Amino acid sequence: MMRSGSLAKRMIRYRRMIDHLLTEGGFADIVLAGGEVVNVITREIYRADVAIKEEYILLVGDCRALIGPSTNVIDVSGTYVAPGFIDSHMHFESAMLSISEFSRLSIASGTTTLIADPHEIANVVGIAGVNAMLDEAATLPNRVLFTVPCLTPDVPGFETAGAEISSRNLDALLGHPLVQGIGEMQGFSNVRPVFARMPGIIDDLLASVHQAKALGKTVEGNAPDLFGADLAAHILACGGSTSCHETTAKAECIEKLRAGVTVFMREGSTQKNMAACITAVTEEGLDSRNLVLVSDDMVADDLLRLGHMNELIRRTIAQGVDPVEAIQMATINAARHFGLSDVGVLAPGKPADLVVISDLRAMRVAAVVMGGVPVAKDGDLLIRIPRYVYPESVKTTVKRRPVKPDDLRLACRGDGATVRGITVIADQNLTDEFTARCSAAGGWFVPAVDQDVLPIVVAERHGRDGRIAKSFVKGLGLQQGALALSVGHDTHNIVACGASYEDMAVAINRVIAMQGGIAMIADGKVVGDLRLPIAGLMTDELTAEEVAERLQSLDRKARDEMGCTLHAPFMHLSFLTLVTSPRRKITDRGLIDTENLQFIDTVCD
Amino acid sequence: MMRSGSLAKRMIRYRRMIDHLLTEGGFADIVLAGGEVVNVITREIYRADVAIKEEYILLVGDCRALIGPSTNVIDVSGTYVAPGFIDSHMHFESAMLSISEFSRLSIASGTTTLIADPHEIANVVGIAGVNAMLDEAATLPNRVLFTVPCLTPDVPGFETAGAEISSRNLDALLGHPLVQGIGEMQGFSNVRPVFARMPGIIDDLLASVHQAKALGKTVEGNAPDLFGADLAAHILACGGSTSCHETTAKAECIEKLRAGVTVFMREGSTQKNMAACITAVTEEGLDSRNLVLVSDDMVADDLLRLGHMNELIRRTIAQGVDPVEAIQMATINAARHFGLSDVGVLAPGKPADLVVISDLRAMRVAAVVMGGVPVAKDGDLLIRIPRYVYPESVKTTVKRRPVKPDDLRLACRGDGATVRGITVIADQNLTDEFTARCSAAGGWFVPAVDQDVLPIVVAERHGRDGRIAKSFVKGLGLQQGALALSVGHDTHNIVACGASYEDMAVAINRVIAMQGGIAMIADGKVVGDLRLPIAGLMTDELTAEEVAERLQSLDRKARDEMGCTLHAPFMHLSFLTLVTSPRRKITDRGLIDTENLQFIDTVCD
Repeated sequence: MMRSGSLAKRMIRYRRMIDHLLTEGGFADIVLAGGEVVNVITREIYRADVAIKEEYILLVGDCRALIGPSTNVIDVSGTYVAPGFIDSHMHFESAMLSISEFSRLSIASGTTTLIADPHEIANVVGIAGVNAMLDEAATLPNRVLFTVPCLTPDVPGFETAGAEISSRNLDALLGHPLVQGIGEMQGFSNVRPVFARMPGIIDDLLASVHQAKALGKTVEGNAPDLFGADLAAHILACGGSTSCHETTAKAECIEKLRAGVTVFMREGSTQKNMAACITAVTEEGLDSRNLVLVSDDMVADDLLRLGHMNELIRRTIAQGVDPVEAIQMATINAARHFGLSDVGVLAPGKPADLVVISDLRAMRVAAVVMGGVPVAKDGDLLIRIPRYVYPESVKTTVKRRPVKPDDLRLACRGDGATVRGITVIADQNLTDEFTARCSAAGGWFVPAVDQDVLPIVVAERHGRDGRIAKSFVKGLGLQQGALALSVGHDTHNIVACGASYEDMAVAINRVIAMQGGIAMIADGKVVGDLRLPIAGLMTDELTAEEVAERLQSLDRKARDEMGCTLHAPFMHLSFLTLVTSPRRKITDRGLIDTENLQFIDTVCD
Repeated sequence: MMRSGSLAKRMIRYRRMIDHLLTEGGFADIVLAGGEVVNVITREIYRADVAIKEEYILLVGDCRALIGPSTNVIDVSGTYVAPGFIDSHMHFESAMLSISEFSRLSIASGTTTLIADPHEIANVVGIAGVNAMLDEAATLPNRVLFTVPCLTPDVPGFETAGAEISSRNLDALLGHPLVQGIGEMQGFSNVRPVFARMPGIIDDLLASVHQAKALGKTVEGNAPDLFGADLAAHILACGGSTSCHETTAKAECIEKLRAGVTVFMREGSTQKNMAACITAVTEEGLDSRNLVLVSDDMVADDLLRLGHMNELIRRTIAQGVDPVEAIQMATINAARHFGLSDVGVLAPGKPADLVVISDLRAMRVAAVVMGGVPVAKDGDLLIRIPRYVYPESVKTTVKRRPVKPDDLRLACRGDGATVRGITVIADQNLTDEFTARCSAAGGWFVPAVDQDVLPIVVAERHGRDGRIAKSFVKGLGLQQGALALSVGHDTHNIVACGASYEDMAVAINRVIAMQGGIAMIADGKVVGDLRLPIAGLMTDELTAEEVAERLQSLDRKARDEMGCTLHAPFMHLSFLTLVTSPRRKITDRGLIDTENLQFIDTVCD
């Protein structure tokens, strides 16, 4: 709901627009003339002009009578004019970029509305972190709304976050006008284990949902692989109307759509689920009104090379979807889901957020207008995005003392034992369990580089008890050195693995010294690093180009210099701590069987 | 938005439902087993059970595990299960029935949600009248919401209402939880004349819109025959998101849909516009998500003989629309327009409002469940609808002294003159102008029954100045006697016409004596009448069957005993006063050229 003041201002603008429409000699500020309008309401394309007055659309149709001597007439013949795109679920943290830097690229590719989930920063710095993002968003010309976490950590007792959010303090966030509602409710993704072991979480989630709904705000779910009664229980815990952005198969997509869940088809840098979900439409002919495209996680490099929502729409068209229907999935369908009447359509009185597309199937964005201002042309921004510097409190979040190699070792009686650990699966959040015989020396297990059984540790970094959990990981293939980073979903403690405990200690200490980021160490020396000072997750110091270049360099060095067999080892490491996805994960508290929500021992015998 | 208390109660219910879903031995109260579910989200029909717990849907799908020893299992195999229907725009006043009596029939035919516009009672008794309806609605088991007028009278200065509503006192209504928003904004239907002559109205409407939007409420428009800039101006005056229920042609329907207006396809007892509007879908293939079926005006007889929304859906299917798509137009499309997340879909957590349909194309309703309670079976209500008696203040609204024949006569110098008047067009709200030579005697014009030029008068009845406007009407064909009624849109003064001034006076006085209603007089005697004590518009004394019978009898007598050539003379008379429709109308203030919003003289020379 809009604040009364801005609403009153809008009514005054509308009154003036009525004068312009009905008075001889009332003219538009801008007319986009002669283009093919993509109408996402009627699912049509037809020739029409778009007249703009101040920040609003005045008329779509024949606008010749609204062209006066000082009207800026932009000839868009031969191109398509569509509403600005909406990304309905995304994390700035995944790009490691500030909102400003992300927006610089996102706007130029036609995305004018972002619904961001500040879940990561919230796990590190809580409400103060979300508030910093809200402050930054308010400085920007694009529409950045937030769906905020109602529970950090997601799995209390199994991981240590930097801050706790629950129904007790959520109201501090919900009232903010840029807060659209509650974001992905992972706290009840694991329906059966949470119900069996931590039913109090459900009560707390419903209390939070109550607060959101009492303010007219929305609630987003997170229901990977849920069906039938489990899915219904999740929907109920979300207050009865929700979305899921973790749907990976056709049958799952159909089940959720039928149950009233808006399916956010995720198509990001790592998880790509659109092609599976869209078959509900292309093969089964289902009504697509509740299908929405979202990026979830988008890395800087993809944003630079491929674009943002325009790229997701392009891929959807490539799956055989009619272009206008595909555009609906990033415009009107999203707007309807959130009850946002201002965005996602081109019609009189709507803010003039629109995209000029030169090639519909390639989704080439020729120009972008936002709030009545031409903001981008041929991929270049025409406006200056203000640079936002985050407050110090959000930039001093790695609160732990340095570690020594011995802090990271796991004790072993005798000369070895069978251990269990986590098997990484390439390009997946989910993992498997492995068991292996691991030898020991001097009372400690030693890395079994030849078997690809490497130590992995998670070190608490929020200034709590500083504990360090230790286990093993398989699938990275490192031959030497160590990797460490302060990005570890969702509580973002420091995760490190390596072929040497000494290098692991250096890597962790480097991350601590940088106040967050990524470090790659070999033979005690820094092979590469990336400082991420905002909550240990993002940078406000580097451009997207610089971040992309640094990450590519890190991945390349991991492969070429350390022998890593995984193409994006840091990304994979950061998900080995995510307790809400299957099957084995590690947090600062220990190794976890996430399906049964139980700690398990690394040492088997 | 729901009130915090009922919202909290719902969260508690949901919590209990989660227990039932996830606990072995957690059972549903009711299971509708083995039916074909009509899924209006995915536009599919498939076999599924529907489990209900207390007032909510627990699960749709395979519900066998939820059937316990005390579960009421209702076999619905061979039938279709759909969400309860929604009528998005209707006036109880048109049926002349109380909400309770209307609901008795409406519920049994599958309509579980009504969005009523109490525009008529508001013009007579203002906020007190609307409050009486709100009180009645709160006693009923169906969901009755209101879109309230923000301006009475619609055309200030051209008609006299019993009460004034504007942005100054609207807040008394908008805060009520049953008030969905502002109803049909007729005050700016006549875009150009209002802009030219009464621009202050636009400011006032926008002030009202501001109040509604600040409360998160909706605004419905009324844009008959508006295109281009005029339509855009109307949309802006409605706050940028609106509907229109007076769209009568395909091109007009397409224009409005393209401009973001939800087209409420009216298909009531008098105006039938669905067949024209629906060609936008059947012939042009437009996305139908913003098309909604509404009845607007439904008389008791149709409600009894044909049904309610089920009949409108049936007719839509008969126009070649897929049955599920037609049902979408009375369920999910309506719910989405109003932002009502609770109605219009069958899904976990939604109130269990559903319809069992035995024949999809005939839309035969076999059973209705509302809020988890089976409420109707084979057209018979299974529950008792409480009888609501309206307060006296709403039942003493005909505030004028009796009239004498001479009060009704129009003076003429000489033996006659050319006069202009209103030509009735059968089955239309709009009229034409005629001119005719009319003779006079003793200084007064006399009815020219042979030319079908009859006197028509409108007598103010709200206790204001009591003035009486006089003109002529053509097209009724009355050979003798007179008709009078206290239903005259939208300010509902007493309108009368006849072949004799003496009978007209008796008819008007009969309406006054009855405290509202319809009277038919011949030779000074009552031929028939119908008392309408609630605001002079409705009855809480008669059943729908009795009202239908009385109206039929009145129409029959008008034809058989008075020679009337129009099949529904009272209905037509009641629209001859409606200033917001073309072209010539009469109010208590005089004869009006409604297109130019100017009074005109009856006597031409």
